[in-house]
Amino acid sequence: MTWPEETALLTDLYQLTMTEAYLEEGMWDEAVFSLFARKLPPRRNYLLAAGLDDALRYLEKLRFGTEALDWLASRGRFSDRLLGWLERFRFSGDVDAVAEGTPVFAEEPLLEVRAPLPEAQLVETYLLNQVHFQTTVASKAARVVTAAAGRHVMDFGLRRYHGTDAGLKVARAAYVAGVDSTSNVLAGKTYGIPLAGTMAHSYVQSHDDELEAFRAFVRVHPNATLLVDTYDTLRGVQHVIRLARELGEDFQVRSIRLDSGDLLALSKAAREMLDEAGLEQVRVYASGGLDEDAVAKLVARGAPIDSFGVGTAMGVSSDAPAVDMAYKLVAYAGRPRVKLSSGKLLLPGAKQIYRREVDGVARGDVLTCRQDTAPGRPLLQPVMRGGQRLPEASPTLEAIREFARSELSRLPPEIRALSPAKPPYPVALGQALLRAREHEVELWSAAT
Amino acid sequence: MTWPEETALLTDLYQLTMTEAYLEEGMWDEAVFSLFARKLPPRRNYLLAAGLDDALRYLEKLRFGTEALDWLASRGRFSDRLLGWLERFRFSGDVDAVAEGTPVFAEEPLLEVRAPLPEAQLVETYLLNQVHFQTTVASKAARVVTAAAGRHVMDFGLRRYHGTDAGLKVARAAYVAGVDSTSNVLAGKTYGIPLAGTMAHSYVQSHDDELEAFRAFVRVHPNATLLVDTYDTLRGVQHVIRLARELGEDFQVRSIRLDSGDLLALSKAAREMLDEAGLEQVRVYASGGLDEDAVAKLVARGAPIDSFGVGTAMGVSSDAPAVDMAYKLVAYAGRPRVKLSSGKLLLPGAKQIYRREVDGVARGDVLTCRQDTAPGRPLLQPVMRGGQRLPEASPTLEAIREFARSELSRLPPEIRALSPAKPPYPVALGQALLRAREHEVELWSAAT
Repeated sequence: MTWPEETALLTDLYQLTMTEAYLEEGMWDEAVFSLFARKLPPRRNYLLAAGLDDALRYLEKLRFGTEALDWLASRGRFSDRLLGWLERFRFSGDVDAVAEGTPVFAEEPLLEVRAPLPEAQLVETYLLNQVHFQTTVASKAARVVTAAAGRHVMDFGLRRYHGTDAGLKVARAAYVAGVDSTSNVLAGKTYGIPLAGTMAHSYVQSHDDELEAFRAFVRVHPNATLLVDTYDTLRGVQHVIRLARELGEDFQVRSIRLDSGDLLALSKAAREMLDEAGLEQVRVYASGGLDEDAVAKLVARGAPIDSFGVGTAMGVSSDAPAVDMAYKLVAYAGRPRVKLSSGKLLLPGAKQIYRREVDGVARGDVLTCRQDTAPGRPLLQPVMRGGQRLPEASPTLEAIREFARSELSRLPPEIRALSPAKPPYPVALGQALLRAREHEVELWSAAT
Repeated sequence: MTWPEETALLTDLYQLTMTEAYLEEGMWDEAVFSLFARKLPPRRNYLLAAGLDDALRYLEKLRFGTEALDWLASRGRFSDRLLGWLERFRFSGDVDAVAEGTPVFAEEPLLEVRAPLPEAQLVETYLLNQVHFQTTVASKAARVVTAAAGRHVMDFGLRRYHGTDAGLKVARAAYVAGVDSTSNVLAGKTYGIPLAGTMAHSYVQSHDDELEAFRAFVRVHPNATLLVDTYDTLRGVQHVIRLARELGEDFQVRSIRLDSGDLLALSKAAREMLDEAGLEQVRVYASGGLDEDAVAKLVARGAPIDSFGVGTAMGVSSDAPAVDMAYKLVAYAGRPRVKLSSGKLLLPGAKQIYRREVDGVARGDVLTCRQDTAPGRPLLQPVMRGGQRLPEASPTLEAIREFARSELSRLPPEIRALSPAKPPYPVALGQALLRAREHEVELWSAAT
């Protein structure tokens, strides 16, 4: 099986068993589900929304093919009614969403799905899987980009991301957040993200000595980035300088890469040695277990590093590898729905987010009932109607990245900063929403 | 493109540029690369090896198809020599590996690849991507299984794992580590893992009241697991008891699920209420942000929970979402290779791991040069020769799981425990390996 047939089964068993029950009960009324973060991780002042493009593609393409249906039938546990319905399945609903690249906060829907209950239920797992992960990584990557303060950032971590899909989606989400390039060749092909690459220690090790390795590599790749820390970083820099003397005007090496040790001291020493040798044009790359804190520290201390290769910590979102994000029923058959589970109180009904900006800086959001209004810019916009993606909901990746840059630049500086903002960004609840929640809670308390 | 064609480009750019240089230089000699963890995360006493099956499948199937080659050619940066070589690429090398389900420690190779340098280099990214991730998750899941102390554990977290491939591979790695079932339907189809599922809050919310929701669900799924915490957990339990009275002998509900609140107090109260109502056969499931520490605490305090639904924390390996694992050149053209980068000193040459057991308990490992011997059982075994997987290297998933169970049971109790073991499990370096490292370091120090 290939996507999307295989993807149809990438769901939780209970989506199928609940759908089966909905079909038996004839529960075809319209449901509204809201996808949002219940709270932000301790070191996140905002989340950067990402993953909508994959969510909409899934809703447009989702089909249950013969192989999937045959396998389900062979389980002997699913009714013919369910199997027949799955065979005919086409998502027919509506989606409203914040644009990818929008900063969002706790309780604010990243997207809302409005569809007959069985359809809206069935798609939960995949929508959350993609939006949760891409948003988690975009939010982490935005911090790395902030820390780099305008210096280049390269995504180098495919080898330690969580599987193949993560490898692709990290490259995409990080690019949305402002990362400049990726080492992932398939991400270059799939998304048109600029590719970056240097050389590995194995290349140097496989040659008889480091200088010979550098000579050999630039014969094939004259404007290479040479990795200098295989044996001794500053001797590596000396070998680069010696190579420059050997090659004279043919020396086109673009940069060196430091990958271990005290990157502040080594980058300063390397820069000085290169400058003294008249190699001011050779740039200094740094990598090796970097996260936003390490990058910020290097930048603050004036490390002469032009480009940061960031990998594992960014793409697994090391300090917050998951966000408490959920996809919750907020209305069914025209009535708002709540959930009172301890610590997980739900806001009922379809919603809208209004963002108020003064002099180009976001001052606060108001979360309202969908039909309500508030001052500011409404962030949830129609992106799919009747199962069809709207033409305006297919921005290019470059447009998404530029939008994210612009949106992030409007956040107050303390919200963009790496440290926890005190107070956090203000999100108020609209009066009608507060009343709706109170009303539903009272109804349930009376009923039970 | 579909797998494996698409997967061919799921690599770092530098694998292609280095390969290009190797081809130009005629560097066809045999290389040995070793895949190992440089160190263990603070809260891991061992790693549980996983991911070998995907690694071997990749090596057997890897081909560069027309679409990939055309796209690479269109970049205008790759030589015809490289493109021609990629077109003809078949992995022709040998692999030795520890069996999936083997506990391993820092510096111990999970696998070693022996092949002409360009082949062994090119496959680095995918091998690490799969072995690193599956090992990371299997190691976390083994802790959850230990904490559960024989009670059932279900993988419930697909929605918050890192993409689609992670969803599948978590289910697999967790099953290897002893988790009993998964909610992931595709993992059930792909790997034959038992499926588990309950119901979501949305099902309860979409009905007019909770009892009506329970009634409706068991009409379709008589032996369901009913989720009782949507409004008030103990009232939810009362509704289950009332349903039992209504249905009499037709009541076949298998279990209830608690998903929020004080799971210790609620499970005790729920168990008591069920028992008083004569419903001793109804089991109690618990879920909701559980990790191994929460599970261990519940078990230690005697929570009457029969089955734990564990998700996000397990599948993103929340406290250690990555391991410092690498794929390093240790020999080329018959000569051991080292790397002296600060903090990343490499052990030269192909290796073997000997595990010494006394009375069925592992007492310590010796890491040796491949040809060297030591007392105990050698863990690295041939799994691929000349690009062909050996027949004995295709165990069933059930066999891998049983092997893991047996291997884990032979670890000393303090190593299997959740707390950091002091001292850690002993791994000694063989004399010949120590001498080889000294020798290489001296050679390089003299040369540079």
